[in-house]
Amino acid sequence: MALITLTTDFGTADPWVGIMKGVIADRAPGVAVIDVTHGIPPQDVLAGALVLRHAVPYFPPGTVHVAVVDPGVGTSRRALCVVTERELLVGPDNGLLSLAAAGARHIIELTEERFFLSPRSVTFHGRDVFAPVAAALATGTVPGALGPAVSDMERLDIPLVAAGPEGLRGQVIYVDRFGNLTTNLAEEALAAFSRSDVSISIAGARLCGVAVSYGAVARGRAVAVVNSWGLLEIAVRDGSASAVLGARVGDPVTVGQSA
Amino acid sequence: MALITLTTDFGTADPWVGIMKGVIADRAPGVAVIDVTHGIPPQDVLAGALVLRHAVPYFPPGTVHVAVVDPGVGTSRRALCVVTERELLVGPDNGLLSLAAAGARHIIELTEERFFLSPRSVTFHGRDVFAPVAAALATGTVPGALGPAVSDMERLDIPLVAAGPEGLRGQVIYVDRFGNLTTNLAEEALAAFSRSDVSISIAGARLCGVAVSYGAVARGRAVAVVNSWGLLEIAVRDGSASAVLGARVGDPVTVGQSA
Amino acid sequence: MALITLTTDFGTADPWVGIMKGVIADRAPGVAVIDVTHGIPPQDVLAGALVLRHAVPYFPPGTVHVAVVDPGVGTSRRALCVVTERELLVGPDNGLLSLAAAGARHIIELTEERFFLSPRSVTFHGRDVFAPVAAALATGTVPGALGPAVSDMERLDIPLVAAGPEGLRGQVIYVDRFGNLTTNLAEEALAAFSRSDVSISIAGARLCGVAVSYGAVARGRAVAVVNSWGLLEIAVRDGSASAVLGARVGDPVTVGQSA
Repeated sequence: MALITLTTDFGTADPWVGIMKGVIADRAPGVAVIDVTHGIPPQDVLAGALVLRHAVPYFPPGTVHVAVVDPGVGTSRRALCVVTERELLVGPDNGLLSLAAAGARHIIELTEERFFLSPRSVTFHGRDVFAPVAAALATGTVPGALGPAVSDMERLDIPLVAAGPEGLRGQVIYVDRFGNLTTNLAEEALAAFSRSDVSISIAGARLCGVAVSYGAVARGRAVAVVNSWGLLEIAVRDGSASAVLGARVGDPVTVGQSA
Repeated sequence: MALITLTTDFGTADPWVGIMKGVIADRAPGVAVIDVTHGIPPQDVLAGALVLRHAVPYFPPGTVHVAVVDPGVGTSRRALCVVTERELLVGPDNGLLSLAAAGARHIIELTEERFFLSPRSVTFHGRDVFAPVAAALATGTVPGALGPAVSDMERLDIPLVAAGPEGLRGQVIYVDRFGNLTTNLAEEALAAFSRSDVSISIAGARLCGVAVSYGAVARGRAVAVVNSWGLLEIAVRDGSASAVLGARVGDPVTVGQSA
Repeated sequence: MALITLTTDFGTADPWVGIMKGVIADRAPGVAVIDVTHGIPPQDVLAGALVLRHAVPYFPPGTVHVAVVDPGVGTSRRALCVVTERELLVGPDNGLLSLAAAGARHIIELTEERFFLSPRSVTFHGRDVFAPVAAALATGTVPGALGPAVSDMERLDIPLVAAGPEGLRGQVIYVDRFGNLTTNLAEEALAAFSRSDVSISIAGARLCGVAVSYGAVARGRAVAVVNSWGLLEIAVRDGSASAVLGARVGDPVTVGQSA
């Protein structure tokens, strides 16, 4: 039996996640369910897509990953199961699954209502569509039984890095609970610069060099590292870079060789 | 072996929930525990009762549902196990279990201290009473072994809807993390009105019609839907109705035919 | 197979905890993982150590307890497995494990990189070191295989209680989500005083007596109890002592006989 994971913007204050797990426990007894997170900011599809992309590789092959950040619930937006080389992704067709679906082999539109709860609400397809479909998949239903194959899905793009004569211009794409600022600048893109004296500008501050750990600077000072997603991150040691620098998602980050 | 669920106001910042799960793991190895939510507002027994009522039906029959919103812990308030047609409810006798216990067949007062942890604290019966009792029930102890049958329990009522010449007058009974406002107006009560032009007033705003999804209005606009609890809900598309309308639990909502 | 618990300052808004569970699910299929809490304040090693100390005894013997509050990640701080009489503790060597490790029999430094994820990031050893090591331990790897035995570890001390002619002087050491104030004054230390008329001073307020439950005072009034950790706690019935008294961790608490 496969494992199921859940990634949503439902938070933990309400019973929404618990109810989804009730449906899964009822329809797929004994199947383990792991929360990736339910703290995606409400309706922030790109944040959900980023989280899913960076979490999925650490789970076993064959895992059923359910993601629900679904402002279009109840409208004509489609519901999908994406079959990749390694796992199954289930969720709304709004781009949420797209960053984790680089190796998509098949895309199935979820239309077979016999797998859904009945009656089906217009506000909570996590309970009525995605949880029961995940339970079906985890207990052996083949994706093709859930509906017809379709040729494409909504896709999101991580903001592109711009290269110019002065270096690279990227941006903050994720801020975590520590206030660490993840950028869209990948470790590979930094290879053109000297690690020890590359110049990094963000929110009016300038950092010199990419450090080997947060501990390379004094407490309260800003530091750049390559983080666990393989991306350039700006942190403040024992503090919050987001708070100290006043930076947030979308803020520009430039990288260049020091003069 | 049965499943156990937990519904509390303990939050997730502290180890209270983890400690309850430790007790269950120690006394009922292998029994699965699912969190309904631990985000009930502190001491808000009615919110806990509402959540339990709407979550319980989605879990398998025979599940042991533990609920702890327990401002009277350590006083003479009783501890109960309620046996319904479909499940077992365990918690303090303060009304918390009552909305989920419509089909109660037996009510047992938990008095048999051999099932409790010893010594027993005066502040944390989740750990010392309710978790070990749930572990006992999930591993086959019959409810009658836990104490004597009693004839009644504390009961809470969902605020009543008032019907008058101008229509129905209800109120907001639950606000979720999205700021969606759940009212006590059931779908059945709305049947007397035309769905497309019923007039709904809340917090100084007037809405016309019950929509088929959040997506029926433009972003940032208020919309009324029947939600996943079968109740009238006021939402703001891609936003928070609670924040936009300044509305909260207890605020009046009136429903009438448009003039 | 052993149980694994997780205690971190990772919060629940991000996927960090979910990713750790993915690693464990991949390397130790079927092993249950229980969250003690992920709400330790960021970088607050003492809070993490206190929580671990008071949670560990409620889990089954043989449990693998992983704790990650790790501001020194990526530096030369060591990673440890502490073998106590009853359980295994895994985490950074910064004092986090020390309060739960009173009965430590062996301390192993985690140096055998074949148990780690590769490549290993400099920012997330929860994923790359501690989760895979816990998976190894839970599936039968003996601690001695993980690295060499070492003779000592970093230790933290709970702030000491000072005894003087006027009584005892302690402090607030933990504040929970209810705003209850846990002090470092143990029940045993209170034995020298009359329970009913001991005088307790905190944050400009004076309380008389240690009550048998929160319910001993009227709503909104402050009350002292011995809590579930066996420590003197100041609470406000149906309210937050932290908010009402303006008190927080480190604030002094004095206990003396009433005049």
